[in-house]
Amino acid sequence: MLWFEMNGKDSDVVVSSRVRLARNLADYPFGDRLNEPSAKEIIEKVKGVFDGKDDYKFTDFASLDKISRSAEAARHKVSPEFAASDSPRALIESDSKNTYIMVLEEDHIRIQSVKPGFALEEALDAAFEADGMIDSALRVAYDEKLGYLTHCPTNLGTGMRASVMMFLPALTYAGGMRSLQNGLGKIGLTIRGMDGEGSNADGCLYQISNQVTLGTSEDEIVSKLSKIVENIEEQERTLRKKLKEDARFEDRVMRAYGTMLYATLIDTNELTKLYADVRLGVSLGLIENVTTRQLDEMLVCGMSGVLMSEAENVRTPAQRDRARADMIRKKLAK
Amino acid sequence: MLWFEMNGKDSDVVVSSRVRLARNLADYPFGDRLNEPSAKEIIEKVKGVFDGKDDYKFTDFASLDKISRSAEAARHKVSPEFAASDSPRALIESDSKNTYIMVLEEDHIRIQSVKPGFALEEALDAAFEADGMIDSALRVAYDEKLGYLTHCPTNLGTGMRASVMMFLPALTYAGGMRSLQNGLGKIGLTIRGMDGEGSNADGCLYQISNQVTLGTSEDEIVSKLSKIVENIEEQERTLRKKLKEDARFEDRVMRAYGTMLYATLIDTNELTKLYADVRLGVSLGLIENVTTRQLDEMLVCGMSGVLMSEAENVRTPAQRDRARADMIRKKLAK
Repeated sequence: MLWFEMNGKDSDVVVSSRVRLARNLADYPFGDRLNEPSAKEIIEKVKGVFDGKDDYKFTDFASLDKISRSAEAARHKVSPEFAASDSPRALIESDSKNTYIMVLEEDHIRIQSVKPGFALEEALDAAFEADGMIDSALRVAYDEKLGYLTHCPTNLGTGMRASVMMFLPALTYAGGMRSLQNGLGKIGLTIRGMDGEGSNADGCLYQISNQVTLGTSEDEIVSKLSKIVENIEEQERTLRKKLKEDARFEDRVMRAYGTMLYATLIDTNELTKLYADVRLGVSLGLIENVTTRQLDEMLVCGMSGVLMSEAENVRTPAQRDRARADMIRKKLAK
Repeated sequence: MLWFEMNGKDSDVVVSSRVRLARNLADYPFGDRLNEPSAKEIIEKVKGVFDGKDDYKFTDFASLDKISRSAEAARHKVSPEFAASDSPRALIESDSKNTYIMVLEEDHIRIQSVKPGFALEEALDAAFEADGMIDSALRVAYDEKLGYLTHCPTNLGTGMRASVMMFLPALTYAGGMRSLQNGLGKIGLTIRGMDGEGSNADGCLYQISNQVTLGTSEDEIVSKLSKIVENIEEQERTLRKKLKEDARFEDRVMRAYGTMLYATLIDTNELTKLYADVRLGVSLGLIENVTTRQLDEMLVCGMSGVLMSEAENVRTPAQRDRARADMIRKKLAK
């Protein structure tokens, strides 16, 4: 199952946790100096590592049409940059482990594991499992002093980026995001809006990740990030309790729910806003019979690429708005 | 039952039909020259006519509190002017006949009958019945040449105003109201917005009535007005069919319905707008399980005076907005 189809810990505030490891093969130049035969060799080599192992599945990503590629980016399996390019590239994924391995993104290999809720350690374990398989089969570029060698120097060392996608509506409404951003910057963490079509502020979704990869260990990164996440969770929950006492806020949440249930045309921006209001309403117990999981799934499935990839005759903006509203009603009826 | 609690003919376009007869007693001066003892005499005399007859019920209107009076105006039993004054006045009403007799409004006696839907003849019959009872018991001011004598010369003759409350959203959206108003003026009819708090344009409700009372008969007035109403009904229904083909219109209607079902704070202006969208949706079959009767009742019961008269602790605007939203949900759940 994909991360958004599963229940996660602390999912009222943490939507998902992700660990990404950047790896390169020692015997090949970095991506931009790579010729096509070498690129194909790398793809074949990495494919060979996972062939027939567990439920790992190989996809020749360059052969997919643009809509399918953009849908996979919306599902957070691959980066938007990886989805956009036409040059040779592959995706190796394990559904059961929530692990997605991009071959020939910026680095030769990018191992990602995306878990629902607050689960950085589980994501790290899953990423390490795939990394171990690669490490025992292929010669990975590694330097005793610098650690893993990467295309971009900011990834040197662990080659790891750990991140959590946080849902912070109460902090956003209270105007607390700017000072949170400044505070995180000072301790080597970075915060940014969700990628994808919906604007960050509307959906109240923020990705918090480590800046520093060098001179530290993977466990230290995860441990430091986890402590900060727990702290932000506490702030967010305290502010939410205050919101619950505001009658206008309850009205806003219930209207958003009514719109999800009855509107017949909904664009991406509106879905993002409705998502934020209804998700908050669910977490405060104002809306029953709806789960944060249903809403996260709805947000992913409402992205234009996913809508278009899942149905024929969904091409024009008007068709997408109708298909999006239909999908939302269907997900809520479950 | 009140008119809005009953089903009526052509209620997709005609909300209600009303006939009002102005009468004065021959032996008393008109209202503004009337002293208090004479006013009380008139009230007693008219009361005596209906005492113990059918289900006629007498109310000393001046003794009611302001909230109850304004609620009766919102229910269209009495005029807002009648409700506002503190001088001696009475209401005599028959629930079964939908007849409301204001004693000491502008004229000594104003007999009104308000029927649901398109039912001018029934309203005229009911008003005539009460008029006959008064005429056989009291000396009514009547002149062979001028007809019934009234306080305001514009009511001389029949003393009658016949009116229909029409729901014309499609004509309103199509920008047809101005030319309809001009056309009606040329043939001695007048059109104006609904009285009450909601603004006319938002609720798409219009009252069409005769201007001329002199040199014509009651039946002629009703017959002329009825033909015009039928003609407007046809225009409105033709335009509605076109609206139904517009996906954005369906979306608008369904959103309004979702808001009615889920919002927890709704003010009068918003109720009026939601009423128009949902009533149109019902008439076009886009919304099922809701009737125009339920919506008309909701609009009346959502007026601040009615809300405040029907519950304790509904005083502030915020309390009213909450009570209004609660009432709407309750009416829709029926």
